[in-house]
Amino acid sequence: MDATPSASLTPAIAPDHPGVPELFAVLAYGEISAFYRLAEEAQLSPTLRGKVAVAKMAAAEMGHFTTLERALSERGLDVFDSMAPYVRALDAYHASTNPSTWQESMVKLYVGDGIAADFYREIAGALAPEVAEIVRDVLAETGHSQFVVDEVRHAVASSRRAKDRLMLWGRRLLGEAITQAQFVLAQREELTDLVITATGDLSNIIALFDRMQRSHADRMAVLGLV
Amino acid sequence: MDATPSASLTPAIAPDHPGVPELFAVLAYGEISAFYRLAEEAQLSPTLRGKVAVAKMAAAEMGHFTTLERALSERGLDVFDSMAPYVRALDAYHASTNPSTWQESMVKLYVGDGIAADFYREIAGALAPEVAEIVRDVLAETGHSQFVVDEVRHAVASSRRAKDRLMLWGRRLLGEAITQAQFVLAQREELTDLVITATGDLSNIIALFDRMQRSHADRMAVLGLV
Repeated sequence: MDATPSASLTPAIAPDHPGVPELFAVLAYGEISAFYRLAEEAQLSPTLRGKVAVAKMAAAEMGHFTTLERALSERGLDVFDSMAPYVRALDAYHASTNPSTWQESMVKLYVGDGIAADFYREIAGALAPEVAEIVRDVLAETGHSQFVVDEVRHAVASSRRAKDRLMLWGRRLLGEAITQAQFVLAQREELTDLVITATGDLSNIIALFDRMQRSHADRMAVLGLV
Repeated sequence: MDATPSASLTPAIAPDHPGVPELFAVLAYGEISAFYRLAEEAQLSPTLRGKVAVAKMAAAEMGHFTTLERALSERGLDVFDSMAPYVRALDAYHASTNPSTWQESMVKLYVGDGIAADFYREIAGALAPEVAEIVRDVLAETGHSQFVVDEVRHAVASSRRAKDRLMLWGRRLLGEAITQAQFVLAQREELTDLVITATGDLSNIIALFDRMQRSHADRMAVLGLV
């Protein structure tokens, strides 16, 4: 990972920064919506093996949710009240990127989760260790990336048309993710303050988005989408 | 639990009985189909709280699936090949008991899982300890029963009509479960042999079904359905 201002030794963000529970809350609703999206999209799988692989990923999301629920509860906060402000933006992201094929679902899983993980890991660099640990925990790979990569590479190798479609799809995922992230930040002051404090200033936020675009291109390449 | 012939000190069924992997396989596919049924039925929940409670139960089913997958793998068997013979009967059970309301879904969860657990726990009494432990592990409560009981009791207390419908629904669940269990046993020799060895003889099987009906009535009473 690049050396960034957020990687300084003294955490920029105190554990009691009001944006911390907001961060936990948006991550928590992300886990719930990922769970239901995965469970639904698994129906697109042509094989029981694929359905089971996706069900395991969905189950791992609920483990992460429980971690965040506990972290909020230790701060005296109810996870459902805390998540409420994020329901609309995350639902909108999923509604606007509803896969119509199994391959689109796999690309969304790999690329969409990758974009989110990049963003939150950069923020984690500026958090107090006990907070950063929770964030990194819930971003941990669910151990099925290789399955996803194989499924997509196989489809891409056998059809030029599938490849073209999936390349456009990947671009759309990045665009929608950034749109919804900006929508959330525009609405939630404490979270915006946390992100700005974490990155340093506005030019650093722009640099962060540049790094995210490069990582996105790398992930597309891993999937054979270049 | 009643003293039954299956509770004798020497296990009636050796760990290498050919019905043991069959038992693991039917349980494994039961977990997968429960996962997808729960994830789908959660959409019926009027609240996010209900959706999350159900998502946690679904995630617990996948933990159980992994236990069974490992147990089969340790016996040199592939979980997918092993499950194949049970797909049709379990899918048929779920298709014939597809809930149309959130309350029906909750009753099915409580009553349907209870019937299955009764049956498998009786069998477990005749298994070698290392096999019985796996069976009991995967039947463990997922810790959300009280949530389910509260949801149903609330609905039943507020509407006589809801109560009548749910009582009929509970009866139908029992009937369909027994129908599909008989269908499975008629088709799978090794599993049938295991069940007959576990229970002792045919009259004991009838006694087992009687006990299951009584436990079913008890569960219906807990839900306020008397």
